Amino acid sequence: MNVAPVDVAAEAPSELAQLKLILSHVADLGHAETVLGWDSRVSMPPHGAAARAEIVGTLGRLTHERFVSDEVGDLLERLRPYEETLDYDSYDASLLRVTRRDWERQRRIPAALVGEIWRSNGLAVAAWDDARAASDFQAFVPHLERQLELRQRYVECFPPAREPYDVLLEDYEPGMTAAQVEAIFAELKTATLPLIEAAPEIDDSFLSGDFAIGAQEEAGRLVLDAFGVDRDAWRLDITTHPFQAKPGLRDIRLTTHYRPGDIHSLFSTMHEFGHGVYEWGVDPALARTPLDSGTSSAFHESQSRTWENLVGRSRPFWRFFYPTLRELFPDHLRDVDEEAFVRGVNKVRPSAIRIDADEVTYNLHIVLRFELERQLLEGRLAVGDLPDAWNALMQEYLGVAVSSDAQGVLQDMHWGAGLVAYFPTYSLGNVISVQLWERAVADLGDLDEQIARGEFGALREWQREHVHRHGRKFRPDELIVRATGGSIDAGPYVRYLQEKYSGL
Amino acid sequence: MNVAPVDVAAEAPSELAQLKLILSHVADLGHAETVLGWDSRVSMPPHGAAARAEIVGTLGRLTHERFVSDEVGDLLERLRPYEETLDYDSYDASLLRVTRRDWERQRRIPAALVGEIWRSNGLAVAAWDDARAASDFQAFVPHLERQLELRQRYVECFPPAREPYDVLLEDYEPGMTAAQVEAIFAELKTATLPLIEAAPEIDDSFLSGDFAIGAQEEAGRLVLDAFGVDRDAWRLDITTHPFQAKPGLRDIRLTTHYRPGDIHSLFSTMHEFGHGVYEWGVDPALARTPLDSGTSSAFHESQSRTWENLVGRSRPFWRFFYPTLRELFPDHLRDVDEEAFVRGVNKVRPSAIRIDADEVTYNLHIVLRFELERQLLEGRLAVGDLPDAWNALMQEYLGVAVSSDAQGVLQDMHWGAGLVAYFPTYSLGNVISVQLWERAVADLGDLDEQIARGEFGALREWQREHVHRHGRKFRPDELIVRATGGSIDAGPYVRYLQEKYSGL
Repeated sequence: MNVAPVDVAAEAPSELAQLKLILSHVADLGHAETVLGWDSRVSMPPHGAAARAEIVGTLGRLTHERFVSDEVGDLLERLRPYEETLDYDSYDASLLRVTRRDWERQRRIPAALVGEIWRSNGLAVAAWDDARAASDFQAFVPHLERQLELRQRYVECFPPAREPYDVLLEDYEPGMTAAQVEAIFAELKTATLPLIEAAPEIDDSFLSGDFAIGAQEEAGRLVLDAFGVDRDAWRLDITTHPFQAKPGLRDIRLTTHYRPGDIHSLFSTMHEFGHGVYEWGVDPALARTPLDSGTSSAFHESQSRTWENLVGRSRPFWRFFYPTLRELFPDHLRDVDEEAFVRGVNKVRPSAIRIDADEVTYNLHIVLRFELERQLLEGRLAVGDLPDAWNALMQEYLGVAVSSDAQGVLQDMHWGAGLVAYFPTYSLGNVISVQLWERAVADLGDLDEQIARGEFGALREWQREHVHRHGRKFRPDELIVRATGGSIDAGPYVRYLQEKYSGL
Repeated sequence: MNVAPVDVAAEAPSELAQLKLILSHVADLGHAETVLGWDSRVSMPPHGAAARAEIVGTLGRLTHERFVSDEVGDLLERLRPYEETLDYDSYDASLLRVTRRDWERQRRIPAALVGEIWRSNGLAVAAWDDARAASDFQAFVPHLERQLELRQRYVECFPPAREPYDVLLEDYEPGMTAAQVEAIFAELKTATLPLIEAAPEIDDSFLSGDFAIGAQEEAGRLVLDAFGVDRDAWRLDITTHPFQAKPGLRDIRLTTHYRPGDIHSLFSTMHEFGHGVYEWGVDPALARTPLDSGTSSAFHESQSRTWENLVGRSRPFWRFFYPTLRELFPDHLRDVDEEAFVRGVNKVRPSAIRIDADEVTYNLHIVLRFELERQLLEGRLAVGDLPDAWNALMQEYLGVAVSSDAQGVLQDMHWGAGLVAYFPTYSLGNVISVQLWERAVADLGDLDEQIARGEFGALREWQREHVHRHGRKFRPDELIVRATGGSIDAGPYVRYLQEKYSGL
């Protein structure tokens, strides 16, 4: 791991040391919250959920109070003259810039509301778990209503935006608006529908069957080893809804989900690896500061979708890994050659479940969620009417009849976890992933050949250099220009889909 | 679970509500620390240890600051008149009494020292892990020296006691002194040595072999089911050093340790169950207060040793469970009848490892640790000389030659975790366990017959009624009188050992 020297100027005022000390404590408490969150998904006995909700509520509130204190505001104010002497890219300038932005934003939220949001998230996720298992949307209704009410109260803490959605989106994708998302999504939708129409019939029957979990676990481990995971600093667990968490420097945790009926877990693991390698690659000098994470949700998803799709569903990757997979599942894959396998894992097929979707139909799942949550937030759609609205759009966009709420509106935990306005960042991540990929290919030359040889180090290093190491130093709209020379643009992604799927 | 009504008097002053609110937040933060501690032993990748030490240091310091604040002191002062109107046994009187005692004690410790102790514990446990794995005591020396130095600084926060050890012991066993421990231990030592001399030759060769971990896991699960564990509120994991943790109401976590060469895991699991059932049985009305845990370490150990030994190594228990164990290990146990098995698991045999010790030799392991840590704390023994001193006492008390530091001075994590003066509570727990057991037998009559039928509910309920539900309402010296009618007394335990071992 690269440890860059900390560029503190010799004349840094004493206020800076005091600010960094407070920020390190706030970061420590944030990491504690991460452990509690990870634990509640991976380890906590279900009956522990009520007590846990109180714990995270208390911890979240105290962390918030520590950060938005007058003391932090005073220090930021007294450090303004120093900040103005610094290079924009420097560590200290970035720290002060991002801390000030966070402080001004978070200071608007009363501590009681912060605590209530943390608490409610814990309860609603537990309720979602049960509701999903029972496919009982009604049991989830009061929790979702409560979550939306809390999001609305959160929005009211800010000056009026063009629409409430923009306030929430700012937390995940600074600088982005719902109107911009709508425009990008219109472009994706227009490009996607003909690809679905034109999708060839592909036999992928060999991807259904009885795939031993043990062999799936081994496949996942081998892929992570090849990608370069240090087993003394990473771990992989099982959850219903896979996620990634970094509870501290050199502590990267992925989760995945195994189904005996298919090998989806492999793509899920590669996806979460993309999140993990982003957090892993943040300059260790940024640890215990507000800069120590990915710069936005879309950038994060660009990394996860890169490893899941641009790598994990590519011909070169399977040139490398298919022989191993075939050894692990000889009965299933004996009569399936590499080309047939690659066509199979890329088959375009509208289906009910987002995380199972191919690259073409995936974005329509996101467009649907974006439209529905926008309506929910503005009160144009009642929570009770959500399943009907969901099912109608599934029919309209994908021609899919939803068989149950568990397979429909209850499939994702996001809204239960209070993540409203998060979904668009998946598709924005797809878009960014190809913009970055084109630049990586230009810089690295024989990237496909490297991947086909099972060599991922140069790609990982390119990502680290151009994206990961910066953490939150630069906003997403700055970082994409620095990394690719241009702003966010759906064009490359649309071309990628068109080219990939015409070649299958 | 029994939910007792909260006995807040109608005229409770508003200061009480404010105090309870603060205490609930302190308890929440304590539970967060418990999750972090559990995670660091069960889940955390080893390279995460350095970051984790900072996190627990920060959290521990903030929790401490919140509790020892002037505000809490003022509230306690203003609540004195109200407290004087209350019945000693009432919830509010107990809360105020225990909170005042904790506040006055903890207020003496500077927050910086608290943070440093938490931080250092995290680092030293990680160092102990590595040192033990490598059997390299030298690598652990600076950490142990640091831990002792911090304990000495901790002791200096208090008025001089008869000896420094007494200050530390007060945290684990309020009201107990090293001199009292010494007297009890002298009695145990005197009674123990002839039992070792007189121990018959017993064939327990069938307890060594290749015991499949999967079958051991199944045996542990079946025992916990029989003991009455609710799988939606408890969990069982694997650690090098087994422990129990309660990160919140209805969230009870045990760990155990499997070795393929024997079935020690079963006794380890029963031991931790005893800790868990104590925490589980605390009146839920005490949740999120300082009363919400066992009253002392010795009382805690009395419960763990009860389930491990008085139940788990008894004839009646194996009357119930031996047929099941035999089914799980048919090849090992086919030719071993129940009587031979019971004799085998109770065989007196001096050995190097404390957690493997039979009930007779066990206390000598504790006496040894008590003597050494008392000398270490007073500087009469240098850390560098500890392995020689350890090995000499092992030879003197048990006639055992220690083969390596891993099998000797490095076998326990306690000193690494900062637990100096904790060890005596294991033997005090043995002593208390039999005092309680005699009373339970008197109250329940056919306890042996119940256990032989696999019925543990009445015993559990007796423990809950007389010990568990009170949490920390009563000091250990009060609780033992309430539960048994007398003070701590080694006599019953000595008689128990003499009778048990003369009957084998």
